[in-house]
Amino acid sequence: MKFWKYHGIGNDFIVLDCITDPVPVDPAWCEQVCDRHFGIGADGVLYILPGQGTDITMRIINADSSEAEMCGNGIRCVAKHAVDTGLVDKDEFTIMTGRGVLKAKVRKDPDDEYTSFVQIDMGAPILDARSVPVDFDGRFIDQPFEADGVKFHANAVSMGNPHFITFDDIGEENVRRLGPVLEKHPFFPKKTNVEFAQVKDGKIHITVYERGAAWTLACGTGACATTVAAALNGLVPFDTPVDVRLPGGWLKITADSKLGYVLMEGPAELVYTGDIDYLR
Amino acid sequence: MKFWKYHGIGNDFIVLDCITDPVPVDPAWCEQVCDRHFGIGADGVLYILPGQGTDITMRIINADSSEAEMCGNGIRCVAKHAVDTGLVDKDEFTIMTGRGVLKAKVRKDPDDEYTSFVQIDMGAPILDARSVPVDFDGRFIDQPFEADGVKFHANAVSMGNPHFITFDDIGEENVRRLGPVLEKHPFFPKKTNVEFAQVKDGKIHITVYERGAAWTLACGTGACATTVAAALNGLVPFDTPVDVRLPGGWLKITADSKLGYVLMEGPAELVYTGDIDYLR
Repeated sequence: MKFWKYHGIGNDFIVLDCITDPVPVDPAWCEQVCDRHFGIGADGVLYILPGQGTDITMRIINADSSEAEMCGNGIRCVAKHAVDTGLVDKDEFTIMTGRGVLKAKVRKDPDDEYTSFVQIDMGAPILDARSVPVDFDGRFIDQPFEADGVKFHANAVSMGNPHFITFDDIGEENVRRLGPVLEKHPFFPKKTNVEFAQVKDGKIHITVYERGAAWTLACGTGACATTVAAALNGLVPFDTPVDVRLPGGWLKITADSKLGYVLMEGPAELVYTGDIDYLR
Repeated sequence: MKFWKYHGIGNDFIVLDCITDPVPVDPAWCEQVCDRHFGIGADGVLYILPGQGTDITMRIINADSSEAEMCGNGIRCVAKHAVDTGLVDKDEFTIMTGRGVLKAKVRKDPDDEYTSFVQIDMGAPILDARSVPVDFDGRFIDQPFEADGVKFHANAVSMGNPHFITFDDIGEENVRRLGPVLEKHPFFPKKTNVEFAQVKDGKIHITVYERGAAWTLACGTGACATTVAAALNGLVPFDTPVDVRLPGGWLKITADSKLGYVLMEGPAELVYTGDIDYLR
């Protein structure tokens, strides 16, 4: 079975074209092939399936065999692949995901045939604290918080998954210590992703502790949630693409001032094509 | 450029056939493609080159771009590939390595077309302590040693690279703590690999702390050195294949009673074939 290996700023995926060559979605197989020593090695498997009132459908199985509703870095890879292989015949189209219909816009990198820049409308941020969810009434924006003896200001924003964001400089040592502490803090009934962010020269630099995945190279929804929080704090403008630096690379995030949508633009890169026998 | 992804009990490699499709040995490229998020992902790249008075030649570039003289798990993958693709037309043949000429014998797994069992003559163990090297005169076999307050008996054996082996049960916590302590202990002028081994029902179970690589799934030379030490301690027989369990799988090791050679037999498995543009 043919597969394609992509990454979006270091978040890497096995892409399967199940429109051309249908195979069933098989979480146990995904866990096996995502193993980095015994399998192909990836953060997850992206299945491209026929549209459901959309141009295509995406399903994501993580390396641990769980299904993700959405993945900001994964959907860019799917969108690039759909355009490059002719699964869609336009560069703006719709993708059904576990989080509903998302719009994608793909443009080729003029300097690199393996890379495209993909813009995804990531939908509206959720600011109602109980819906994020955090244990607080109203909006939790620029609020004081204390964990493990460290006091700082923080923000809670959901992009379908919860994010807890601070722009305070609490020091590298506290960051390393507080990431896992905050993820499981009782303030977050469904745990949380944690973003330690700094705004410098209009750019946002983020270190992400991802819920269930620890320190990661990149988190698309984290970049979106952090940009929304930064704009609400007056640290970056609304309605303007903001450069967001993650350990694996750059994204450009635009937060709508009416909080109706967040646009994420970033690269998707084809690394290689492969062939693996499905029935091992 | 076509490549093949193999593993030998979890030690995984990109194999390049530079007899059929010559490319230069390029350590910087290897470092890039071995990256597990941005590249193909592997412990190293195995180049198969024309023989030098041998049937084929193998060169190994590690993920950090350094060149290895030999790799017990890698050479099994090279031997299987050479037979499967017809680079050699016999199942017993010679391979030039950084450690000289090694003999390989390949037999297919009758139950799995992707797996072969490969026996490699790993050469003679080195027992002269100054040659291992350790700071001791004569043979360092079943000698008392103390590190970080823990007393145990240990053995020093080289298979071209130094190994320090204990069969004492010092407890899981001491194992975790002593691995990195022993690697860099002043007793070892060129540092050392460390094997914590237990013999149960005639089988050897090993946890390996690899020099420069920390805890690893498998170490072929470590399995050989440990079996030689076990035989010298009377824990397993000479001249008989001994099952050696490493975290990534099983090897069968035969230690010659005259200490003229050590035979290693183990699996090599093809995971998938890939195609990557060499000039990225």
